[in-house]
Amino acid sequence: MIFGSDNQAGASARIVKAVSDAYTNTTESAYGEDSFSTAAVDALRQVFDTDLSAYFVVSGTAANTLALSTMVQPWDGIICHHQAHILLDESSGPALITGGASLLPVPSKELKITPEALSTMLQRLPNEPPHNIRPKALSVSQANEGGQVYSANEIKALSKLAKEQGMYVHMDGARFANAVAALDCHPADITWKAGVDALCLGATKNGAVAAEAIVFFDRSLALDFEYRLKRSGHLVSKSRLFGAQFLAWLEDDHWLALANAANGKAQELRERISTLDGVRLAFDTQSNESFIILQQKLYDELIGEGATMYAWYLDSLPDNVLLDEGEVLARMVTSFETQSVQIDSFVAACNRLGT
Amino acid sequence: MIFGSDNQAGASARIVKAVSDAYTNTTESAYGEDSFSTAAVDALRQVFDTDLSAYFVVSGTAANTLALSTMVQPWDGIICHHQAHILLDESSGPALITGGASLLPVPSKELKITPEALSTMLQRLPNEPPHNIRPKALSVSQANEGGQVYSANEIKALSKLAKEQGMYVHMDGARFANAVAALDCHPADITWKAGVDALCLGATKNGAVAAEAIVFFDRSLALDFEYRLKRSGHLVSKSRLFGAQFLAWLEDDHWLALANAANGKAQELRERISTLDGVRLAFDTQSNESFIILQQKLYDELIGEGATMYAWYLDSLPDNVLLDEGEVLARMVTSFETQSVQIDSFVAACNRLGT
Amino acid sequence: MIFGSDNQAGASARIVKAVSDAYTNTTESAYGEDSFSTAAVDALRQVFDTDLSAYFVVSGTAANTLALSTMVQPWDGIICHHQAHILLDESSGPALITGGASLLPVPSKELKITPEALSTMLQRLPNEPPHNIRPKALSVSQANEGGQVYSANEIKALSKLAKEQGMYVHMDGARFANAVAALDCHPADITWKAGVDALCLGATKNGAVAAEAIVFFDRSLALDFEYRLKRSGHLVSKSRLFGAQFLAWLEDDHWLALANAANGKAQELRERISTLDGVRLAFDTQSNESFIILQQKLYDELIGEGATMYAWYLDSLPDNVLLDEGEVLARMVTSFETQSVQIDSFVAACNRLGT
Amino acid sequence: MIFGSDNQAGASARIVKAVSDAYTNTTESAYGEDSFSTAAVDALRQVFDTDLSAYFVVSGTAANTLALSTMVQPWDGIICHHQAHILLDESSGPALITGGASLLPVPSKELKITPEALSTMLQRLPNEPPHNIRPKALSVSQANEGGQVYSANEIKALSKLAKEQGMYVHMDGARFANAVAALDCHPADITWKAGVDALCLGATKNGAVAAEAIVFFDRSLALDFEYRLKRSGHLVSKSRLFGAQFLAWLEDDHWLALANAANGKAQELRERISTLDGVRLAFDTQSNESFIILQQKLYDELIGEGATMYAWYLDSLPDNVLLDEGEVLARMVTSFETQSVQIDSFVAACNRLGT
Repeated sequence: MIFGSDNQAGASARIVKAVSDAYTNTTESAYGEDSFSTAAVDALRQVFDTDLSAYFVVSGTAANTLALSTMVQPWDGIICHHQAHILLDESSGPALITGGASLLPVPSKELKITPEALSTMLQRLPNEPPHNIRPKALSVSQANEGGQVYSANEIKALSKLAKEQGMYVHMDGARFANAVAALDCHPADITWKAGVDALCLGATKNGAVAAEAIVFFDRSLALDFEYRLKRSGHLVSKSRLFGAQFLAWLEDDHWLALANAANGKAQELRERISTLDGVRLAFDTQSNESFIILQQKLYDELIGEGATMYAWYLDSLPDNVLLDEGEVLARMVTSFETQSVQIDSFVAACNRLGT
Repeated sequence: MIFGSDNQAGASARIVKAVSDAYTNTTESAYGEDSFSTAAVDALRQVFDTDLSAYFVVSGTAANTLALSTMVQPWDGIICHHQAHILLDESSGPALITGGASLLPVPSKELKITPEALSTMLQRLPNEPPHNIRPKALSVSQANEGGQVYSANEIKALSKLAKEQGMYVHMDGARFANAVAALDCHPADITWKAGVDALCLGATKNGAVAAEAIVFFDRSLALDFEYRLKRSGHLVSKSRLFGAQFLAWLEDDHWLALANAANGKAQELRERISTLDGVRLAFDTQSNESFIILQQKLYDELIGEGATMYAWYLDSLPDNVLLDEGEVLARMVTSFETQSVQIDSFVAACNRLGT
Repeated sequence: MIFGSDNQAGASARIVKAVSDAYTNTTESAYGEDSFSTAAVDALRQVFDTDLSAYFVVSGTAANTLALSTMVQPWDGIICHHQAHILLDESSGPALITGGASLLPVPSKELKITPEALSTMLQRLPNEPPHNIRPKALSVSQANEGGQVYSANEIKALSKLAKEQGMYVHMDGARFANAVAALDCHPADITWKAGVDALCLGATKNGAVAAEAIVFFDRSLALDFEYRLKRSGHLVSKSRLFGAQFLAWLEDDHWLALANAANGKAQELRERISTLDGVRLAFDTQSNESFIILQQKLYDELIGEGATMYAWYLDSLPDNVLLDEGEVLARMVTSFETQSVQIDSFVAACNRLGT
Repeated sequence: MIFGSDNQAGASARIVKAVSDAYTNTTESAYGEDSFSTAAVDALRQVFDTDLSAYFVVSGTAANTLALSTMVQPWDGIICHHQAHILLDESSGPALITGGASLLPVPSKELKITPEALSTMLQRLPNEPPHNIRPKALSVSQANEGGQVYSANEIKALSKLAKEQGMYVHMDGARFANAVAALDCHPADITWKAGVDALCLGATKNGAVAAEAIVFFDRSLALDFEYRLKRSGHLVSKSRLFGAQFLAWLEDDHWLALANAANGKAQELRERISTLDGVRLAFDTQSNESFIILQQKLYDELIGEGATMYAWYLDSLPDNVLLDEGEVLARMVTSFETQSVQIDSFVAACNRLGT
């Protein structure tokens, strides 16, 4: 009953082997100039079918904050969803790395940023420079923190609005693989072809040891980027660590296989939950995250029996979803390692305890 | 002839295996709360024979800058050697992570910081608050960037001066293992027993995949440290990566075996170089770094034949060491992987080319 | 018809004379150690009837951001009203001066922060350190940006909630004098006696040349404060500029006389507006700011005839106040210099144009 | 015997009157858009005989740090004299306002930065991006902290070296008026015509109340500058304060008259000192600062009799000037207010006490 987070899983055997091989009896250049990292950037160019600049870091927060720092001045703002990881779960990282830029959540309680909500926000933002915050980047999570996936057209519509205001578009792709798998689309369709300037492409949550790529489709943003890496402590000397992982992850669409596995188990979980009495889905999701509503008592008992999942921010609920007295919202995440037997156990426990 | 840097080496087989095992079919808590990291902190307590707080990060720059940020306010200064890595090789990392603190190099061209030079500096620093920089931390590298090792008494003498001024003592231990091996001392003797408040303990250069520990002997400095990690992107989700490495590195004094191997090869290299005609040692060293002086022409020919080493900062030379016309200073570093055959090749090439 | 802002007015004759005298043929210590500033701090102790530390700066943004920087770590948050000046009108100043702290607006569309809204917010804030923002300061504007004045009991209730969470209480008193005048209370009653730890006391908008005081009732917050001033460029050499103004401003309750004059004209303005047909008050106010709703066409015509006032943020409207088609919200501010004849002109113009 | 600092003097009668007039019964736009500031910028264009952008702030530290922030990225460096005010006397201001840029003092103990010393430094700086600091600005003080004045040709030679490296040239002109007066040159000759990109033009030390201008000859540096002002708290609402001062200061060459007065008294002081037995000039100066060497005992007695002057940084002495046992270095500064009678008193006291 392990549904705590996809970052609590291990790594895929192919990636583990790739790391082991890279470090065994081989001398390599350091600081990103190793042959693995160079090849991995080439592999990204193949996967995305375009020229691009890419860099590798050890965490999603590093990736997001460093990517955003190329788009905004310290006096600018970054528009994001009110549940965005960069807003709620990265401490003051964006402010540190950008030198003080502000996060501006879209004032709407919907599960995704909609063009309508973004447009209204842009019209109402104070506009008396230099007193106010000037929006200069839009950050979209794909798949997002509520398990939602944006279609290519949705990304395009948001990007269009952003670009009309002179804003860059950043994609937090900590679960980008899950989104591509869910949409069954080409990675280019929901990134550079849809107006995305930089993608933070997460491998960690999808079967890697620890590896995130910052992919610049707008290569002008990469100017001086090594300085940004270095000064934040993210220019790693034995950088083959990241290159080796990404090579293995991208090879033979291994990344999509891993994501499909995680998504498939999430789908299975949701289908099984829909048959339960005391537990219901809070809203539909398309990726490897599911959100359920259940009585606090049942939640506590499940945790007591060893289930891992997290009670979740109530503000992630759209306005039309209400909790009843004593109910709690919980997030369940599957990974490439999730087995059906864990779902069986969970369902059985719910049935046993929930009545 | 691979003497470029110890961070271009691979990783020891024991560490590679530890990482592989940690990621294979195991679910672990994230963000530093995994069982490997917890056990690694305990192992550090054993090795240093004291209570302590410890955290793990992916790079030495991250370790140094985060550790220093706990010691100084943004308007304070950090005294260091004029060749310190934090001064010359970490870009503006210290300023970013401390919020703007200043680095104050000791104005002396000696190979180590001496108590005399430190004392003189402290007396001459401008002292009109708030106009000037207030020194609040002393940073000592052990072994240092010039291959020198400080004795326990030397550390104690520096710490005493620092503490009389209300300053903290930071040790950059990117090559701490090499220093312990060279001194054949107990790790406690040159750290907390000698007045060191925080040690950045590097494993990467000494056989690890990528792992640095920040060890707080003054545990009050660790207050809120998780926030510092998180906002700089250095709180890694699959944090077992670091714990697994440090456990294997510390077990059975593996770290010292690796350091002794590297130091031994450096000693062998220096002895062989002392027999050469066209190449001489710039000054004596005690760790795994050696510095040579040779004609630029010879240097270029060696590089042309595949030798890796780096022309080095001339300011690292003490005042009494002078280059002749056409000469260049070069740094040669050995690692746990260095083989005698590489030294043989180097010596042979020098003999062949140098006449 | 000059109702643009109280910072577009001149300075009172007493303050102008005080500045002139202070600079005429007198040598004075620099950097805040001049006799005027020392005396002004003593005068503040008299006025607030308590011991305190105080410093002077040239702008309200400097005062607010520097005061807040003493209360929070860069990874902490500052709770404020959704219309707070520090949130909307000080660019990224709070982030710069605090080193990256976050502003957390109370999610409520009321004209003041209510204890209920604050309490609900505190319960719902994400609380997974170090991932989230930890609230560490509450900032209350008195009088606030919507012209509202908090009673002593209201301040007390908010402070109580804040202190229960380990938070400091900051008061943005850019129009503090207007609040004291409106409440007819002792300044201590709505500051330190009600739990305020630091007050930014603005004189500029209330008849001074350019002078703001940062008043620390919790003197421990003032540690190292001169460093904060100096590094932000706010330690002024000929600091008598500020001391001289504050001495004259506080003497004989001159500051309250100025504030009463401004408040009185605002009251007169509101009463006259309530008699008009095409213009109505958006909501009640108690200080020298008034908010009106009128047709855009009328607004434009008034501006065309030389009236100064500003179309205002729609988000400052509480939920129960709605604009009709074609209407606009505008802010009108009176100062110590405002004359009844300006109000007469405005009313006459409205009557003439508004039909 | 008032020789402490020119920032301890009052303000000239013309400037005091200008400030008084500007605030008496006049409504003005705020935040730099007032008619005085607009006219003052035009006056600067006249004085410098070129198009330019200019902004006004309350302190020299604000001016220097904000100007430098337009020239460097946080990972860049600013080369300066080893006695530069920005290095020694502005706390960590440059780091705060630039977001972390480094100050790189020229390693030479000369009284001015020489082209030779600068050239040598540029050749020896570590150059392994992104590890090191990349020099991107040269800061020259005119007149400098040691009372020296650079000729137009000296400025040109330094600028040429800087521009060849892609660096900007900043001039700290806290005592620029004294330099122009000493050189008897056109202000353009030692600024934009000599390669200076931005000048911080100080009026405060030369007879103003508190006013410094940031003058951009390279107007592209001024992009977004209002944001920089605002977020650092340096966009003043009643900004006429600065405009009024600068208008009066520049009118009829009043600024040069004030500087000539201060310089003349310094010259008189130096001539009188050269006749004394127990006091000698440390080195020659050309502006309103003089440096003397005398016995500590005499220094103390002079202070005891009410003389104001400051014991000065020993590092400001060039290598060929040595103190004898018991001697101290002191700085004496004259201002526009200095009277010959003060010099007479000082000389008489030296003669009386010094034997």
